[in-house]
Amino acid sequence: MQAFFAPRAIALLGASSSPEKLGYAVARNLIQGGYRGQVHLINPRGGFLFGRPIYPSLDETPGEIDLAILIVPAPATPEALRQCARRGIRAAIIPSGGFRESGPAGAALEEECLQIARQNQMRLIGPNCIGILDTHLPLNTTFLAPPPPLAGDLALLSHSGALAAAVIDWSRGQGFGFSRLVSLGNQADVTETDLLPGCAADPQTRVICLYLESLGDGRRFIETARQTVVQKPVLALKTGRSQAGARAAASHTGALAGSEAAFDAAFDLAGVQRFDTLEDLFDSALALAACPLPASGQTAILTNAGGPGVLAADALESQGLSLAAPGPETRQKLQAILPPAASSHNPVDMLASASPTLYADSLRLLLADENIASALVILPPSPVFPTEEIAAALLPVISSQPKPVLPVVMGSGLVEQTRAVFRAAGLPSYPFPERAVKALGSLWRRARYLKEEEQAAAPLKVASALDGLEPAEREKSPAWAGSSSDEMNLSSPPSALLSLLKKLPAQSGPLPTETVFGLLDAAGIACALPRLAQSAEQAGQIAAQIGFPLVMKIESPDILHKSDVGGVALGIDSVEAAQATWQRLLESARRAAPQAHLLGVTLQPQALPGQEALLGAVRDPRFGPLMAFGSGGVEVEGLKDLAFGLAPLDRRQAHKLLQKTWAGRKLRGFRSIAAVNEEAVVQALLRLAALAALEPRLAEIEINPLRVTVGGALALDARARLL
Amino acid sequence: MQAFFAPRAIALLGASSSPEKLGYAVARNLIQGGYRGQVHLINPRGGFLFGRPIYPSLDETPGEIDLAILIVPAPATPEALRQCARRGIRAAIIPSGGFRESGPAGAALEEECLQIARQNQMRLIGPNCIGILDTHLPLNTTFLAPPPPLAGDLALLSHSGALAAAVIDWSRGQGFGFSRLVSLGNQADVTETDLLPGCAADPQTRVICLYLESLGDGRRFIETARQTVVQKPVLALKTGRSQAGARAAASHTGALAGSEAAFDAAFDLAGVQRFDTLEDLFDSALALAACPLPASGQTAILTNAGGPGVLAADALESQGLSLAAPGPETRQKLQAILPPAASSHNPVDMLASASPTLYADSLRLLLADENIASALVILPPSPVFPTEEIAAALLPVISSQPKPVLPVVMGSGLVEQTRAVFRAAGLPSYPFPERAVKALGSLWRRARYLKEEEQAAAPLKVASALDGLEPAEREKSPAWAGSSSDEMNLSSPPSALLSLLKKLPAQSGPLPTETVFGLLDAAGIACALPRLAQSAEQAGQIAAQIGFPLVMKIESPDILHKSDVGGVALGIDSVEAAQATWQRLLESARRAAPQAHLLGVTLQPQALPGQEALLGAVRDPRFGPLMAFGSGGVEVEGLKDLAFGLAPLDRRQAHKLLQKTWAGRKLRGFRSIAAVNEEAVVQALLRLAALAALEPRLAEIEINPLRVTVGGALALDARARLL
Repeated sequence: MQAFFAPRAIALLGASSSPEKLGYAVARNLIQGGYRGQVHLINPRGGFLFGRPIYPSLDETPGEIDLAILIVPAPATPEALRQCARRGIRAAIIPSGGFRESGPAGAALEEECLQIARQNQMRLIGPNCIGILDTHLPLNTTFLAPPPPLAGDLALLSHSGALAAAVIDWSRGQGFGFSRLVSLGNQADVTETDLLPGCAADPQTRVICLYLESLGDGRRFIETARQTVVQKPVLALKTGRSQAGARAAASHTGALAGSEAAFDAAFDLAGVQRFDTLEDLFDSALALAACPLPASGQTAILTNAGGPGVLAADALESQGLSLAAPGPETRQKLQAILPPAASSHNPVDMLASASPTLYADSLRLLLADENIASALVILPPSPVFPTEEIAAALLPVISSQPKPVLPVVMGSGLVEQTRAVFRAAGLPSYPFPERAVKALGSLWRRARYLKEEEQAAAPLKVASALDGLEPAEREKSPAWAGSSSDEMNLSSPPSALLSLLKKLPAQSGPLPTETVFGLLDAAGIACALPRLAQSAEQAGQIAAQIGFPLVMKIESPDILHKSDVGGVALGIDSVEAAQATWQRLLESARRAAPQAHLLGVTLQPQALPGQEALLGAVRDPRFGPLMAFGSGGVEVEGLKDLAFGLAPLDRRQAHKLLQKTWAGRKLRGFRSIAAVNEEAVVQALLRLAALAALEPRLAEIEINPLRVTVGGALALDARARLL
Repeated sequence: MQAFFAPRAIALLGASSSPEKLGYAVARNLIQGGYRGQVHLINPRGGFLFGRPIYPSLDETPGEIDLAILIVPAPATPEALRQCARRGIRAAIIPSGGFRESGPAGAALEEECLQIARQNQMRLIGPNCIGILDTHLPLNTTFLAPPPPLAGDLALLSHSGALAAAVIDWSRGQGFGFSRLVSLGNQADVTETDLLPGCAADPQTRVICLYLESLGDGRRFIETARQTVVQKPVLALKTGRSQAGARAAASHTGALAGSEAAFDAAFDLAGVQRFDTLEDLFDSALALAACPLPASGQTAILTNAGGPGVLAADALESQGLSLAAPGPETRQKLQAILPPAASSHNPVDMLASASPTLYADSLRLLLADENIASALVILPPSPVFPTEEIAAALLPVISSQPKPVLPVVMGSGLVEQTRAVFRAAGLPSYPFPERAVKALGSLWRRARYLKEEEQAAAPLKVASALDGLEPAEREKSPAWAGSSSDEMNLSSPPSALLSLLKKLPAQSGPLPTETVFGLLDAAGIACALPRLAQSAEQAGQIAAQIGFPLVMKIESPDILHKSDVGGVALGIDSVEAAQATWQRLLESARRAAPQAHLLGVTLQPQALPGQEALLGAVRDPRFGPLMAFGSGGVEVEGLKDLAFGLAPLDRRQAHKLLQKTWAGRKLRGFRSIAAVNEEAVVQALLRLAALAALEPRLAEIEINPLRVTVGGALALDARARLL
């Protein structure tokens, strides 16, 4: 990839001396943009441009060439690539359209280009893109009209060229710049994932911004992004939420996990911060590039007016930040310098008369307080002093200490100078308190992420709800058969499970309940394993073997929600009742679902009372198995109390999923809801995730409900579907 | 109030010829600001300013004066007000600080000023404010440095002066203007509510924006705002969410309804749109001022680049908008003019080469489609045409038809001209698609509100879950005793209820359960009315009278959550069991809550199985009784499935509350959850709201749970607390 960002010489195929042609615009940007290497212009017609010769063909150019830019019509591109290959060029940018985006013929052309590149160890950016731009090298392979973006420390990798162009223009107006911009187009070869390591290594880049419309290889993105994020923040805007919708699904997990849940889980896993708007993304990117990270969420707000201070305070909570309580010593010192009617509480309101010195001294006091990890300084146009003098007085205080300080500069014409003062010092400023708070929230999220990653090696402390119980109480509710306290080792899964997986039916579709329970059981998840009775008489026999009370359920590959068809009966307490119920359930199901193929009725032990949860996995085409945990029962789709994460999970991730839902939080008890065995739920979740990761043909598998008591967890019902 | 906004002559007390004094700045703004009436400058020192005499005292000024501006120290203000009163002045603006905001002495001074005003039929704005500014009159009573805001059609009423000043400066930079700005300061007399009718009547004002830090008389605000909103949109930013917190409370309703829930309910009731940020508020205000309202949420997106189109589409759902499906005829006509690779699906992507004509023609086709109610037109800097020419081509299409169209102009320097083209035509434009979508959402919310208000006179159609049931099925579950199908008439409440309310204890604190059930029963809400047994023997007697099965509960003024102390027993099925349980519950409660005063144990019938809900009311100090409806049981605080509305409710509002919660939506049935009697819940909610509105001493009253079956609804448990 080095050839793209540090080429020693560049060839422009399709250079043109007509100013309205792209081949002219690219030549202009290459040559006038300050690129220090050789630029060779090529066009069969020859001639001169910007005082340089235009070579009739690539073969006539002198010296070694690292990068080619192909401004040629789509059909001529394969031949141009072959010429480049012969000339020993290892990197090419194809701005032209007319490839995959235009239909099947274009897709075939794109595939041909890719094959040529693969055969010749050549990398391609594009087609259908704007190209790349490095403000420090400098290098500008685009055809965009000047001026180029300001030099800065943000990298932008964009799936949309038009968006990159609009962002360049907007960023100039906002006064911030970029280290690199890459427009990726159709991504026939090079993707955003390929470019991450280079951005991580680029000394000019401090923050990496992604504009994504899709992701090719989801798992590779996660791995690469994860390694990048430890070095530099990665921020992403991913479009397509509106098209995500619900997928065709047979389980609640499948119905509720749109593909966006998988993207959210993937970004979460990789430590990539996701944003919904470009404005939010760049607000945060600028803070991340300029500021140290806060050690906690405790924030001080310094203002010369009450209203904006309260606006800032209001916004803190949504970002996981809180209003710091300045220590008594700090408050005393503040009171000594503030006017009598001012507030030394946080937000610290110095009143409208606040001077540059008072701003600076107050900020210094706040930042010296160990209860305070960050500060927002609010500057509406001062009615008394030139606001830019306040900014100038604040700068030395901000730069002389290690806590992040974000300035809010409210207004427009009266405060342009003020913004410029901060900008010249490399500091962003924000026009509204809420936007500064969001940016500070981003700093705090990154601080937490890095801390968690650091601690990931350390063993996880699990506060078990059972720790406080008497041994007698623990034993009252014995662990269900099949529960195992050992974690499943994914590299050597139980052989019973492997042999069951080998015996899975070849056809796609729902699995019989017995098969699903068999898989769970083999994976070490305790189940109310049902036994199928194909006649009323057999039901009586099985009932006598299991004991009472019993649960009976209709069994059919065509019925997914058994209670919807009146196919469930509880509290069966005798052989006679089991026989009569067998008959009744069959008739009821036949009435409600006349088309369904009925296999019989299953019998299983009735579980002890306890809490309930849903555990599910659904295979995402891009990221593999996506796990769900949350409130189950029949109300799962109404309550939407579900959290998602990518399989396989580790204990830390499993606990995170639990904490994100009410179903998970209440496992440790809440008011009169008794605590149950949280660890048994974590175990079941880890095992289900391992099972889902193990068998790529599992489209969906769901336990609903998992009954949880003090003694353990029992899968009461489950369903699964094969791809 | 006319004197403030159309004064024939103004007196400025405290005029000063020293340019650094406020008395100079106000004189400058009055005289140079173009005000057409008389301005009389007053200062004991006399002299000249801006070529006018400074009168030594108010008495020496000629003619009638409507408005006085008092630039005098706080202690001198009462005397100055008296002079104004003697001079026949009926309106005064007091910018000075040093009143209520500075402590008790200032508060006394403020009260004195208010009394003088009241005695002389004089109205006051301030103290501690910036004053008022009308760009059309024009009139500028502020001391703000020029330039003043541009003339425009937004009114801003602000509790914060500094914020108003920052907004003026910012709005100039954004290129939009105001009709009026009023800084209200301490609101000793005039409040935002007083100014609403004048803004509604002002022909120059199209949209009213409020920046609120509190509200004095909540109910009066609701009434006035409601009348205003029918004429003109009212938008509000209300700060203080972070301080709202949970109040000290004895019920779930009280614990979960922070004062912000009451503000939300109040704005909802008044039709005031609430915003979290100033940027969002003004984005929407500008759209409301400039655009017609959409007839539906069906939105078309027209773009020359895929990325921004998808960003816009992604944002629609969160605003209740949807991506319209253009009709086949529209798509055919679009295909005829679009390039082959373009998309005629919505978002309509015309590709980067789109000309001004293509933009205009495509927009015309989309707006002519009856499936489309509004459009977003996205303009990144065009790589081919001057973007401002595209804007110019769009204008006649936009103005010649009645559907709202919002332009998104992305970029900065390259599109400044483009923004100016729209601005000159009175149209706002937005720098990012998401911000335009939010503004369009505001138009759509207003359209829906006005439609609902229009239909409010028409009878509400209630789709009852029972409509489809056989009469036999309905009767299986008989209505509980005490249920009544008539609505309670608040103007003539049941006499039994009135006599119970008269007998309420004089002291504050929780009411005994029997009293609470008695109130509910008298209000026409069916209850499992418990009867108190003060001995095991008496428990046996009562049990024999009620019949079995029974529920028994501990009774104590000190125990609010009975199940927390093991104070509840279900399924009591004999006299002997009732006697034994009496003993057991008392012992258990004594162990868990040794301090509690135990009154005995209550007995009540055990209810039939069904759905459950929570109904509550908590008295908000500002708005009166705030109703809550949602999921109850022990999980209410975990699930947070509650909606709030102000009492008394009408049927429409009650149904709205139901629809906002899962507990309410599932009453009509969901999958295997059977439908129950929604109407019985609506009745109970209306009656509880009426009861809460009737008795001002009720701090909280809560039914949790209300058991709902096909036959009706029964309050199983309830609690209440007196102020």
